[in-house]
Amino acid sequence: MEFRSQCPIASTLDIVGDKWSLLILRSMVVGATSYSDFLASAEKISTNILAERLRRLEDAGLIARTTARQGSIRGAYALTPRGAELIPALQELARWGEANIPDRWEAPERFYAARPEDFGEAAPADG
Amino acid sequence: MEFRSQCPIASTLDIVGDKWSLLILRSMVVGATSYSDFLASAEKISTNILAERLRRLEDAGLIARTTARQGSIRGAYALTPRGAELIPALQELARWGEANIPDRWEAPERFYAARPEDFGEAAPADG
Repeated sequence: MEFRSQCPIASTLDIVGDKWSLLILRSMVVGATSYSDFLASAEKISTNILAERLRRLEDAGLIARTTARQGSIRGAYALTPRGAELIPALQELARWGEANIPDRWEAPERFYAARPEDFGEAAPADG
Repeated sequence: MEFRSQCPIASTLDIVGDKWSLLILRSMVVGATSYSDFLASAEKISTNILAERLRRLEDAGLIARTTARQGSIRGAYALTPRGAELIPALQELARWGEANIPDRWEAPERFYAARPEDFGEAAPADG
């Protein structure tokens, strides 16, 4: 991966700084797991952008394929712990939108209640 | 402004969902105000992208021109209160980068100490 600088914000945006990557993660926080779930989101992502973004998110270690669902040609995806650690940033972006853009949806309660540790492998227990 | 949906995250990304807009705001949080300040940042933004993003950020009400500095053909910019409210999201993106990408710079203390209310017009005082 080519980073523009060693700035942690610039580097984070080198990975997820586009209109779609964080939206896919958003959908996963509230339960989306499959290709068809992502296609069904209100923003009408196109199949080619979705496929490209899923591949990039997977390469960056933010999402991982889980066992393919029966009857589906495409696998399902889960947030990795690394991907789930973006939840606080997603929540702040949502708060900003609700407070600063008129007539936005209110994000569901389970979105604001989500915590990184609810996703992916549990951290090793202490002691 | 065309929004893809009424989702507050999608709509926020419709405004700042690219590799540069949030970086310009980042630079302003730590003191950048002028065109030449932005051009001097480590990421080497090009003049045409910078000009376009500044115009969009101004149109979106996230930054505002302040009185032009003497001898400068271009004005200086300041975060508006609306723009400054993105600081918590910027801080979360920085925390993620520091924790999840090796060898990033540590953001300066004044970056993490910045609060929205430090910028722009003060909120009307109560009582």
